[in-house]
Amino acid sequence: MFRIDHIGIAVNELESAVAKWVKLLGVSRESVQYHKVKHARMDMAYIGGNGTAIELMSPWDEESTIYKFIEKRGAGLHHICFDTSDLEVELKKIADSGFPLVDKTPRESMGELIAFLHPKGFDGVLIEFKETKGSGD
Amino acid sequence: MFRIDHIGIAVNELESAVAKWVKLLGVSRESVQYHKVKHARMDMAYIGGNGTAIELMSPWDEESTIYKFIEKRGAGLHHICFDTSDLEVELKKIADSGFPLVDKTPRESMGELIAFLHPKGFDGVLIEFKETKGSGD
Repeated sequence: MFRIDHIGIAVNELESAVAKWVKLLGVSRESVQYHKVKHARMDMAYIGGNGTAIELMSPWDEESTIYKFIEKRGAGLHHICFDTSDLEVELKKIADSGFPLVDKTPRESMGELIAFLHPKGFDGVLIEFKETKGSGD
Repeated sequence: MFRIDHIGIAVNELESAVAKWVKLLGVSRESVQYHKVKHARMDMAYIGGNGTAIELMSPWDEESTIYKFIEKRGAGLHHICFDTSDLEVELKKIADSGFPLVDKTPRESMGELIAFLHPKGFDGVLIEFKETKGSGD
């Protein structure tokens, strides 16, 4: 079983969402990590440390996949991300099992190797895998 | 920060979903726990042990809240469940912070104490809290 690295959540407005989650989880505002993700045209806030984190994503404009997601399904839960120690090997196993992939090979995002599976393989659930050395899956 | 106990996923048909998740996560079919949840009119399968689990839910009929969810948003990610060592105290803190609740007091489900927050408080994310003694949050 893989460790769940984070849960991705699509929101319209990042700061008000961060304020709510920080309050609920009882973590400090200073511990929140912010990123601008150019290829996805979104702002991201990563909340949490030990265990599974919450990743909030808000779109820059209508070109963002997050904008399109919100338009279609509404704001809310967007994806689950699992850790793996070797993403290339894992993706091959997943493809060999017959599951459809969005990313057939690992791609870089913010200095990390990631890949998405296609939600049609998992009843509409978008699944991300992230390579984390020493994740021990 | 709370531990995430499980991620809830709404599916149309339980067995085919279990088969896919068991294959992806590399866990045994025998480790899957099944429950019939009468008050929610759904079948449930709980997959995973160490860390965060995957909870698959399929509706019995149109009366099920899971049926209504799928009809409105499609199958897919449904809720996140956090652990807490004292649900009553936690719910009071959450209500005092101004977040809207579905369950104002803990209720019993399958021998455990649970409560749901209202998704309108968290950009459409449905959040469950579950009392787990010794969760050490």
